Amino acid sequence: MLKLFTGRGTIGLACEIVLEEAGADYEVVRLDFAKDEQRQPEYLAINPKSRVPALVTDRGVITEAPAIVAYVAETHPAAKLAPFGDAFAMAELQAFNTYLCSWVHPAAAHRHRGYRWADDPAAIADMRRKAPEVFAEAAGVIEAEYLKGPWVMGEAYTTADAYLYVVASWLPRDGVEMARFPRISEHFARVGARSAVGKVLARIA
Amino acid sequence: MLKLFTGRGTIGLACEIVLEEAGADYEVVRLDFAKDEQRQPEYLAINPKSRVPALVTDRGVITEAPAIVAYVAETHPAAKLAPFGDAFAMAELQAFNTYLCSWVHPAAAHRHRGYRWADDPAAIADMRRKAPEVFAEAAGVIEAEYLKGPWVMGEAYTTADAYLYVVASWLPRDGVEMARFPRISEHFARVGARSAVGKVLARIA
Repeated sequence: MLKLFTGRGTIGLACEIVLEEAGADYEVVRLDFAKDEQRQPEYLAINPKSRVPALVTDRGVITEAPAIVAYVAETHPAAKLAPFGDAFAMAELQAFNTYLCSWVHPAAAHRHRGYRWADDPAAIADMRRKAPEVFAEAAGVIEAEYLKGPWVMGEAYTTADAYLYVVASWLPRDGVEMARFPRISEHFARVGARSAVGKVLARIA
Repeated sequence: MLKLFTGRGTIGLACEIVLEEAGADYEVVRLDFAKDEQRQPEYLAINPKSRVPALVTDRGVITEAPAIVAYVAETHPAAKLAPFGDAFAMAELQAFNTYLCSWVHPAAAHRHRGYRWADDPAAIADMRRKAPEVFAEAAGVIEAEYLKGPWVMGEAYTTADAYLYVVASWLPRDGVEMARFPRISEHFARVGARSAVGKVLARIA
């Protein structure tokens, strides 16, 4: 059985949705960040980076959300969550998830976790102030260029949809009105209406 | 023919090395950042994110270094640059490249491009001051946990080696002594000794 280590309000939610969409046999362990559980020796033995998500498999641990969702998709081919066998389409999918993980997610993180990159409280405050502007600019790029519709990759629902859904859910939390991006808003509603997503959200409510 | 858009001092170098290792039929276009070529309409038509690298293929453009190297590996199977068909090993490889692109690369970028996340010059200066500490901590994680040896993934040279090679080359530039990390230093020398890498470096010298 797969075991997903995650935490509330993190990108681990995208992995949890993909596991559910895949029909995987899995369980979820939610770390309590208030208790710093992600920095305890027990968890560092699983993920030395002290971050979530991490997926424990029978062959070892997989970290990093894009790698976890790709693994779940590849090992559950019946769910067709990624276009395996089509190198170009796979690269487009990976590029989308990479943009989210390498640019959009860190941009949003400057709102709440500026201490990762600065020590001066005034610097952290300036990052916090600017973060919505950077996040909104990235959302504008996705809105204009990278959401084929109805799903991110076009006609097929993929791991990118779960990933975008979770990142988009952070827009209002992070000071950006989602309604500024009608296509992202529609996509967010479309993903949210899926039964797998409803089941996961009910579990964490 | 594949066409790689890149720029000096960027992660595009990892893609260029992987293209060379793969024996691909490709050409390289080096954008001049001093002339802001990455923000001109001609390039924005290729990559609306106004970043490098971007790989133009006969089916369209692929952006984001991890997606580009995965595409080159998949379309040049004889070079065996990724363990296709082994979902767990592929996830380990993708997790490594994702750690570099989503955490290590942005951490280093705070040294030179703090303006992306703050406006206050004092904030940008504080990020610049802290960046070597964050970069070194990440290098320490790689040194201790994620470099199997002799290559990143063990016995097989993969895209992760080219990726780590380029990121490691930034350590001294960014105020971190590479010698603090003996395994990364050895790996850096090992990758640098490859003929494909020598060929690429000679071209950009």
